[in-house]
Amino acid sequence: MELYEAIYGRRDVRRFQAEQIADDVLARILDAAHHAGSVGFMQPWNFIVVRSLDVRQQVYELFTRENARAAENYTGERRELYDSLKLAGILEAPVSVAVTCDRSRNGPAVLGKNSMPEMDLYSTCCAIQNLWLAARSEGIGVGWVSILDPTLVKPLLGIPDDIVLVAWLCLGIPVQFDDRPMLETVGWEKRLPLEEVVFAERWQERWAADSSK
Amino acid sequence: MELYEAIYGRRDVRRFQAEQIADDVLARILDAAHHAGSVGFMQPWNFIVVRSLDVRQQVYELFTRENARAAENYTGERRELYDSLKLAGILEAPVSVAVTCDRSRNGPAVLGKNSMPEMDLYSTCCAIQNLWLAARSEGIGVGWVSILDPTLVKPLLGIPDDIVLVAWLCLGIPVQFDDRPMLETVGWEKRLPLEEVVFAERWQERWAADSSK
Repeated sequence: MELYEAIYGRRDVRRFQAEQIADDVLARILDAAHHAGSVGFMQPWNFIVVRSLDVRQQVYELFTRENARAAENYTGERRELYDSLKLAGILEAPVSVAVTCDRSRNGPAVLGKNSMPEMDLYSTCCAIQNLWLAARSEGIGVGWVSILDPTLVKPLLGIPDDIVLVAWLCLGIPVQFDDRPMLETVGWEKRLPLEEVVFAERWQERWAADSSK
Repeated sequence: MELYEAIYGRRDVRRFQAEQIADDVLARILDAAHHAGSVGFMQPWNFIVVRSLDVRQQVYELFTRENARAAENYTGERRELYDSLKLAGILEAPVSVAVTCDRSRNGPAVLGKNSMPEMDLYSTCCAIQNLWLAARSEGIGVGWVSILDPTLVKPLLGIPDDIVLVAWLCLGIPVQFDDRPMLETVGWEKRLPLEEVVFAERWQERWAADSSK
Protein backbone atom coordinates (compact mmCIF):
# COMPACT_ATOMS: atom_id res chain seq x y z
CA MET A 1 0.00 0.00 0.00
CA GLU A 2 1.11 3.52 -0.72
CA LEU A 3 2.30 5.46 2.35
CA TYR A 4 -0.20 8.32 2.19
CA GLU A 5 -3.02 5.85 1.62
CA ALA A 6 -2.02 4.06 4.84
CA ILE A 7 -1.66 7.34 6.77
CA TYR A 8 -5.03 8.74 5.71
CA GLY A 9 -6.80 5.37 5.86
CA ARG A 10 -5.54 4.39 9.32
CA ARG A 11 -8.25 4.29 11.96
CA ASP A 12 -8.55 3.38 15.62
CA VAL A 13 -10.62 0.23 15.21
CA ARG A 14 -12.96 -1.21 17.83
CA ARG A 15 -15.18 -3.57 15.79
CA PHE A 16 -13.49 -6.70 14.54
CA GLN A 17 -14.25 -9.92 12.71
CA ALA A 18 -13.41 -13.16 14.48
CA GLU A 19 -10.91 -14.40 11.88
CA GLN A 20 -7.36 -15.01 13.15
CA ILE A 21 -4.28 -13.12 11.96
CA ALA A 22 -1.71 -15.38 10.30
CA ASP A 23 1.69 -15.47 11.98
CA ASP A 24 3.52 -14.34 8.87
CA VAL A 25 1.33 -11.24 8.60
CA LEU A 26 1.86 -10.50 12.27
CA ALA A 27 5.61 -10.97 11.83
CA ARG A 28 5.68 -8.39 9.02
CA ILE A 29 3.73 -5.91 11.16
CA LEU A 30 5.99 -6.42 14.19
CA ASP A 31 9.14 -6.22 12.08
CA ALA A 32 7.93 -2.87 10.72
CA ALA A 33 7.44 -1.68 14.31
CA HIS A 34 10.93 -2.90 15.22
CA HIS A 35 12.37 -0.80 12.39
CA ALA A 36 11.31 2.52 13.87
CA GLY A 37 14.13 4.78 14.85
CA SER A 38 15.10 4.78 18.50
CA VAL A 39 17.20 7.08 20.61
CA GLY A 40 20.82 5.88 20.58
CA PHE A 41 19.61 2.83 18.57
CA MET A 42 18.33 1.60 21.94
CA GLN A 43 15.34 -0.39 20.62
CA PRO A 44 13.78 -0.21 24.10
CA TRP A 45 10.54 -1.94 23.08
CA ASN A 46 9.04 -5.38 23.49
CA PHE A 47 5.85 -6.70 21.93
CA ILE A 48 3.87 -9.36 23.78
CA VAL A 49 1.47 -11.14 21.46
CA VAL A 50 -1.57 -12.21 23.47
CA ARG A 51 -4.11 -14.58 21.93
CA SER A 52 -5.29 -16.13 25.22
CA LEU A 53 -8.99 -15.44 25.67
CA ASP A 54 -8.60 -15.90 29.41
CA VAL A 55 -6.07 -13.08 29.65
CA ARG A 56 -8.06 -10.87 27.30
CA GLN A 57 -11.14 -11.44 29.47
CA GLN A 58 -9.21 -10.26 32.53
CA VAL A 59 -8.00 -7.19 30.64
CA TYR A 60 -11.55 -6.53 29.47
CA GLU A 61 -12.73 -6.56 33.09
CA LEU A 62 -10.06 -4.01 33.98
CA PHE A 63 -11.19 -1.90 31.02
CA THR A 64 -14.83 -2.07 32.16
CA ARG A 65 -13.88 -0.87 35.61
CA GLU A 66 -11.72 2.03 34.32
CA ASN A 67 -14.35 2.98 31.77
CA ALA A 68 -16.98 3.30 34.50
CA ARG A 69 -14.62 5.63 36.37
CA ALA A 70 -13.92 7.67 33.21
CA ALA A 71 -17.64 8.00 32.40
CA GLU A 72 -18.10 9.93 35.64
CA ASN A 73 -16.20 12.83 34.04
CA TYR A 74 -19.28 13.59 31.94
CA THR A 75 -22.87 14.62 32.58
CA GLY A 76 -26.06 15.13 30.58
CA GLU A 77 -25.93 14.68 26.82
CA ARG A 78 -22.16 14.28 26.83
CA ARG A 79 -22.52 11.40 29.29
CA GLU A 80 -25.20 9.78 27.17
CA LEU A 81 -23.00 10.06 24.10
CA TYR A 82 -20.00 8.68 26.03
CA ASP A 83 -22.01 5.70 27.24
CA SER A 84 -23.12 4.95 23.68
CA LEU A 85 -19.57 4.71 22.32
CA LYS A 86 -17.79 1.44 21.75
CA LEU A 87 -14.31 2.19 23.03
CA ALA A 88 -12.53 -1.16 22.85
CA GLY A 89 -12.64 -4.49 21.04
CA ILE A 90 -10.51 -6.51 23.46
CA LEU A 91 -12.66 -9.65 23.27
CA GLU A 92 -13.60 -9.46 19.59
CA ALA A 93 -10.11 -8.85 18.20
CA PRO A 94 -8.31 -12.21 18.06
CA VAL A 95 -4.90 -10.75 18.94
CA SER A 96 -3.79 -8.21 21.49
CA VAL A 97 -0.27 -6.81 21.53
CA ALA A 98 1.10 -5.28 24.71
CA VAL A 99 3.89 -2.83 23.91
CA THR A 100 6.45 -2.14 26.61
CA CYS A 101 9.49 0.07 27.10
CA ASP A 102 12.58 -1.09 29.00
CA ARG A 103 13.94 2.24 30.20
CA SER A 104 17.23 0.79 31.42
CA ARG A 105 18.12 -1.15 28.26
CA ASN A 106 21.74 -0.55 27.22
CA GLY A 107 22.63 0.96 30.59
CA PRO A 108 22.44 4.45 32.00
CA ALA A 109 24.26 6.37 29.22
CA VAL A 110 22.18 5.90 26.10
CA LEU A 111 23.27 8.28 23.35
CA GLY A 112 20.76 11.09 22.97
CA LYS A 113 18.91 10.43 26.23
CA ASN A 114 21.06 12.55 28.55
CA SER A 115 19.09 15.78 28.10
CA MET A 116 15.69 14.21 27.29
CA PRO A 117 15.34 11.00 29.32
CA GLU A 118 11.79 10.47 28.01
CA MET A 119 13.19 9.74 24.52
CA ASP A 120 12.93 5.98 25.13
CA LEU A 121 9.17 6.25 25.63
CA TYR A 122 8.91 8.50 22.59
CA SER A 123 10.83 5.98 20.47
CA THR A 124 8.44 3.25 21.57
CA CYS A 125 5.50 5.35 20.37
CA CYS A 126 7.17 5.78 16.98
CA ALA A 127 7.37 1.98 16.77
CA ILE A 128 3.66 1.78 17.59
CA GLN A 129 2.84 4.14 14.73
CA ASN A 130 4.88 1.96 12.35
CA LEU A 131 2.91 -1.04 13.61
CA TRP A 132 -0.38 0.78 13.09
CA LEU A 133 0.43 1.78 9.52
CA ALA A 134 1.87 -1.62 8.59
CA ALA A 135 -1.27 -3.27 9.95
CA ARG A 136 -3.41 -0.91 7.86
CA SER A 137 -1.52 -1.88 4.74
CA GLU A 138 -2.10 -5.56 5.56
CA GLY A 139 -5.85 -4.99 6.00
CA ILE A 140 -5.56 -5.36 9.78
CA GLY A 141 -7.21 -2.87 12.13
CA VAL A 142 -5.60 -1.68 15.35
CA GLY A 143 -7.30 -0.19 18.39
CA TRP A 144 -5.20 1.40 21.15
CA VAL A 145 -6.95 0.82 24.49
CA SER A 146 -5.81 3.51 26.92
CA ILE A 147 -8.72 3.11 29.34
CA LEU A 148 -6.65 0.71 31.43
CA ASP A 149 -4.54 1.06 34.55
CA PRO A 150 -1.11 -0.26 33.48
CA THR A 151 -0.22 -1.25 37.05
CA LEU A 152 -3.14 -3.71 37.05
CA VAL A 153 -2.50 -5.06 33.54
CA LYS A 154 1.22 -5.75 33.95
CA PRO A 155 0.89 -8.61 36.49
CA LEU A 156 -1.44 -10.49 34.10
CA LEU A 157 1.49 -10.85 31.65
CA GLY A 158 4.29 -11.10 34.21
CA ILE A 159 5.73 -7.74 33.16
CA PRO A 160 8.35 -6.62 35.73
CA ASP A 161 7.79 -3.49 37.81
CA ASP A 162 10.56 -1.51 36.11
CA ILE A 163 9.19 -2.07 32.59
CA VAL A 164 6.70 0.54 31.32
CA LEU A 165 3.53 -0.72 29.66
CA VAL A 166 3.07 1.87 26.93
CA ALA A 167 0.15 0.42 24.98
CA TRP A 168 -2.47 -2.29 24.83
CA LEU A 169 -3.33 -2.79 21.17
CA CYS A 170 -6.17 -4.89 19.73
CA LEU A 171 -5.51 -6.33 16.28
CA GLY A 172 -7.87 -8.01 13.88
CA ILE A 173 -9.71 -7.75 10.61
CA PRO A 174 -12.07 -4.80 11.04
CA VAL A 175 -15.75 -4.89 10.24
CA GLN A 176 -14.79 -1.92 8.09
CA PHE A 177 -12.24 0.88 7.84
CA ASP A 178 -14.25 4.07 8.34
CA ASP A 179 -13.57 7.18 6.27
CA ARG A 180 -13.26 9.36 9.34
CA PRO A 181 -12.38 8.91 13.02
CA MET A 182 -15.36 7.65 14.98
CA LEU A 183 -15.12 10.55 17.47
CA GLU A 184 -15.41 12.98 14.54
CA THR A 185 -18.38 11.13 13.04
CA VAL A 186 -20.38 11.11 16.28
CA GLY A 187 -19.56 14.77 16.94
CA TRP A 188 -17.38 14.25 20.03
CA GLU A 189 -14.59 16.48 18.64
CA LYS A 190 -13.84 18.26 15.36
CA ARG A 191 -10.68 17.96 13.30
CA LEU A 192 -8.61 21.11 13.67
CA PRO A 193 -7.66 22.92 10.45
CA LEU A 194 -3.98 22.43 9.61
CA GLU A 195 -3.47 26.22 9.79
CA GLU A 196 -4.36 26.13 13.48
CA VAL A 197 -1.70 23.60 14.41
CA VAL A 198 1.19 24.91 12.30
CA PHE A 199 3.08 28.05 13.29
CA ALA A 200 5.85 29.97 11.53
CA GLU A 201 9.05 30.82 13.39
CA ARG A 202 7.35 31.45 16.76
CA TRP A 203 4.50 30.16 18.93
CA GLN A 204 1.12 31.28 17.56
CA GLU A 205 2.51 33.06 14.51
CA ARG A 206 0.45 31.99 11.56
CA TRP A 207 2.04 29.81 8.91
CA ALA A 208 0.58 30.41 5.46
CA ALA A 209 1.85 27.91 2.95
CA ASP A 210 0.32 28.48 -0.46
CA SER A 211 -0.69 24.88 -0.79
CA SER A 212 -1.69 24.16 2.76
CA LYS A 213 -4.83 22.04 2.63
CA MET B 1 6.18 5.65 -2.10
CA GLU B 2 5.13 2.26 -0.81
CA LEU B 3 4.65 2.10 2.98
CA TYR B 4 7.20 -0.62 3.71
CA GLU B 5 9.74 1.13 1.50
CA ALA B 6 9.29 4.29 3.60
CA ILE B 7 9.47 2.35 6.88
CA TYR B 8 12.65 0.44 5.98
CA GLY B 9 14.26 3.39 4.16
CA ARG B 10 13.63 5.96 6.90
CA ARG B 11 16.81 7.18 8.60
CA ASP B 12 17.77 9.71 11.22
CA VAL B 13 19.56 12.18 8.96
CA ARG B 14 22.29 14.58 10.07
CA ARG B 15 23.95 15.55 6.76
CA PHE B 16 21.88 17.79 4.52
CA GLN B 17 22.11 19.69 1.27
CA ALA B 18 21.47 23.42 1.40
CA GLU B 19 18.45 23.39 -0.93
CA GLN B 20 15.19 24.71 0.56
CA ILE B 21 12.04 22.65 1.03
CA ALA B 22 9.08 23.96 -0.95
CA ASP B 23 6.07 25.02 1.10
CA ASP B 24 3.72 22.61 -0.67
CA VAL B 25 5.99 19.66 0.15
CA LEU B 26 6.22 20.81 3.76
CA ALA B 27 2.42 21.20 3.88
CA ARG B 28 1.95 17.59 2.73
CA ILE B 29 4.39 16.35 5.36
CA LEU B 30 2.75 18.36 8.15
CA ASP B 31 -0.74 17.33 7.05
CA ALA B 32 0.35 13.69 7.25
CA ALA B 33 1.58 14.33 10.79
CA HIS B 34 -1.71 16.00 11.68
CA HIS B 35 -3.58 12.88 10.54
CA ALA B 36 -2.08 10.64 13.17
CA GLY B 37 -4.55 9.25 15.66
CA SER B 38 -4.78 11.04 18.98
CA VAL B 39 -6.31 10.14 22.29
CA GLY B 40 -9.91 11.37 22.38
CA PHE B 41 -9.27 13.02 18.98
CA MET B 42 -7.42 15.64 21.03
CA GLN B 43 -4.84 16.61 18.37
CA PRO B 44 -2.63 18.04 21.13
CA TRP B 45 0.24 18.89 18.79
CA ASN B 46 1.63 22.03 17.21
CA PHE B 47 4.38 22.29 14.63
CA ILE B 48 6.54 25.41 14.56
CA VAL B 49 8.35 25.75 11.24
CA VAL B 50 11.68 27.50 11.85
CA ARG B 51 13.75 28.71 8.93
CA SER B 52 15.45 31.57 10.76
CA LEU B 53 19.21 31.01 10.76
CA ASP B 54 19.53 33.22 13.81
CA VAL B 55 17.23 30.99 15.86
CA ARG B 56 18.86 27.83 14.51
CA GLN B 57 22.25 29.19 15.51
CA GLN B 58 21.03 29.73 19.05
CA VAL B 59 19.63 26.20 19.15
CA TYR B 60 22.90 24.88 17.78
CA GLU B 61 24.77 26.57 20.61
CA LEU B 62 22.46 24.89 23.13
CA PHE B 63 23.10 21.57 21.37
CA THR B 64 26.87 22.08 21.57
CA ARG B 65 26.68 22.73 25.28
CA GLU B 66 24.46 19.68 25.98
CA ASN B 67 26.58 17.49 23.75
CA ALA B 68 29.70 18.39 25.72
CA ARG B 69 27.87 17.35 28.90
CA ALA B 70 26.69 14.10 27.29
CA ALA B 71 30.18 13.23 26.04
CA GLU B 72 31.35 13.05 29.64
CA ASN B 73 29.34 9.84 30.02
CA TYR B 74 31.96 8.01 27.98
CA THR B 75 35.67 7.23 28.33
CA GLY B 76 38.42 5.68 26.24
CA GLU B 77 37.54 4.26 22.83
CA ARG B 78 33.83 4.81 23.38
CA ARG B 79 34.51 8.50 24.04
CA GLU B 80 36.67 8.78 20.92
CA LEU B 81 33.91 7.17 18.88
CA TYR B 82 31.30 9.46 20.44
CA ASP B 83 33.35 12.55 19.66
CA SER B 84 33.70 11.44 16.04
CA LEU B 85 29.94 11.18 15.46
CA LYS B 86 27.91 13.87 13.75
CA LEU B 87 24.79 14.00 15.89
CA ALA B 88 22.84 16.95 14.48
CA GLY B 89 22.45 18.99 11.32
CA ILE B 90 20.72 22.03 12.84
CA LEU B 91 22.63 24.58 10.75
CA GLU B 92 22.84 22.61 7.50
CA ALA B 93 19.18 21.60 7.29
CA PRO B 94 17.21 24.57 5.91
CA VAL B 95 14.12 23.88 8.02
CA SER B 96 13.67 22.93 11.64
CA VAL B 97 10.30 21.88 13.03
CA ALA B 98 9.64 22.13 16.74
CA VAL B 99 6.88 19.74 17.80
CA THR B 100 4.93 20.56 20.94
CA CYS B 101 2.16 19.01 23.01
CA ASP B 102 -0.55 21.09 24.68
CA ARG B 103 -1.48 18.82 27.55
CA SER B 104 -4.54 20.83 28.55
CA ARG B 105 -6.12 21.07 25.10
CA ASN B 106 -9.85 20.23 25.19
CA GLY B 107 -9.99 20.57 28.97
CA PRO B 108 -9.34 18.16 31.80
CA ALA B 109 -11.57 15.25 30.70
CA VAL B 110 -10.17 14.06 27.40
CA LEU B 111 -11.64 10.71 26.40
CA GLY B 112 -9.12 7.91 26.93
CA LYS B 113 -6.72 9.97 29.03
CA ASN B 114 -8.26 9.34 32.45
CA SER B 115 -6.26 6.20 33.23
CA MET B 116 -3.18 7.01 31.13
CA PRO B 117 -2.58 10.79 31.26
CA GLU B 118 0.60 10.44 29.19
CA MET B 119 -1.48 9.48 26.13
CA ASP B 120 -1.28 13.05 24.80
CA LEU B 121 2.50 12.87 24.62
CA TYR B 122 2.29 9.43 23.05
CA SER B 123 -0.14 10.73 20.41
CA THR B 124 2.28 13.52 19.57
CA CYS B 125 5.03 10.96 18.97
CA CYS B 126 2.75 9.04 16.60
CA ALA B 127 2.33 12.27 14.65
CA ILE B 128 6.11 12.66 14.52
CA GLN B 129 6.47 9.18 13.05
CA ASN B 130 3.90 10.07 10.36
CA LEU B 131 5.92 13.21 9.62
CA TRP B 132 9.13 11.20 9.41
CA LEU B 133 7.69 8.65 6.98
CA ALA B 134 5.93 11.25 4.83
CA ALA B 135 9.19 13.19 4.61
CA ARG B 136 11.00 10.02 3.53
CA SER B 137 8.49 9.46 0.76
CA GLU B 138 9.04 13.06 -0.41
CA GLY B 139 12.83 12.58 -0.48
CA ILE B 140 13.26 14.73 2.63
CA GLY B 141 15.47 13.59 5.49
CA VAL B 142 14.57 14.17 9.15
CA GLY B 143 16.91 14.23 12.14
CA TRP B 144 15.48 14.26 15.66
CA VAL B 145 17.81 16.27 17.91
CA SER B 146 17.30 15.13 21.49
CA ILE B 147 20.59 16.49 22.81
CA LEU B 148 18.85 19.70 23.86
CA ASP B 149 17.42 20.99 27.11
CA PRO B 150 13.78 21.81 26.24
CA THR B 151 13.55 24.42 29.00
CA LEU B 152 16.29 26.43 27.25
CA VAL B 153 14.91 25.98 23.72
CA LYS B 154 11.31 26.97 24.47
CA PRO B 155 11.98 30.68 25.21
CA LEU B 156 13.69 31.05 21.81
CA LEU B 157 10.34 30.36 20.12
CA GLY B 158 8.08 31.92 22.73
CA ILE B 159 6.64 28.56 23.72
CA PRO B 160 4.63 28.93 26.96
CA ASP B 161 5.73 27.16 30.12
CA ASP B 162 2.79 24.76 30.17
CA ILE B 163 3.42 23.49 26.62
CA VAL B 164 5.74 20.47 26.28
CA LEU B 165 8.46 20.62 23.65
CA VAL B 166 8.50 17.02 22.45
CA ALA B 167 10.92 17.21 19.54
CA TRP B 168 13.33 19.39 17.59
CA LEU B 169 13.42 18.04 14.05
CA CYS B 170 15.82 19.05 11.26
CA LEU B 171 14.43 18.68 7.73
CA GLY B 172 16.19 18.91 4.42
CA ILE B 173 17.36 17.02 1.39
CA PRO B 174 19.90 14.51 2.71
CA VAL B 175 23.35 14.03 1.27
CA GLN B 176 22.13 10.43 1.04
CA PHE B 177 19.74 7.98 2.66
CA ASP B 178 21.95 5.33 4.22
CA ASP B 179 21.05 1.65 4.06
CA ARG B 180 21.45 1.22 7.80
CA PRO B 181 21.29 3.42 10.91
CA MET B 182 24.53 5.31 11.40
CA LEU B 183 24.91 3.98 14.95
CA GLU B 184 24.75 0.44 13.56
CA THR B 185 27.28 1.19 10.81
CA VAL B 186 29.86 2.64 13.19
CA GLY B 187 29.39 -0.20 15.67
CA TRP B 188 27.82 1.85 18.48
CA GLU B 189 24.92 -0.64 18.90
CA LYS B 190 23.64 -3.73 17.09
CA ARG B 191 20.13 -4.28 15.79
CA LEU B 192 18.32 -6.77 18.03
CA PRO B 193 16.86 -9.85 16.31
CA LEU B 194 13.07 -9.64 16.08
CA GLU B 195 12.78 -12.84 18.14
CA GLU B 196 14.37 -11.05 21.08
CA VAL B 197 11.84 -8.25 21.19
CA VAL B 198 8.65 -10.26 20.57
CA PHE B 199 7.16 -12.44 23.29
CA ALA B 200 4.19 -14.84 23.23
CA GLU B 201 1.47 -14.51 25.85
CA ARG B 202 3.81 -13.57 28.72
CA TRP B 203 6.96 -11.54 29.40
CA GLN B 204 10.06 -13.34 28.10
CA GLU B 205 8.20 -16.29 26.60
CA ARG B 206 9.58 -16.86 23.18
CA TRP B 207 7.40 -16.14 20.18
CA ALA B 208 8.19 -18.40 17.25
CA ALA B 209 6.32 -17.35 14.15
CA ASP B 210 7.18 -19.59 11.21
CA SER B 211 7.93 -16.62 9.02
CA SER B 212 9.58 -14.36 11.53
CA LYS B 213 12.49 -12.69 9.78
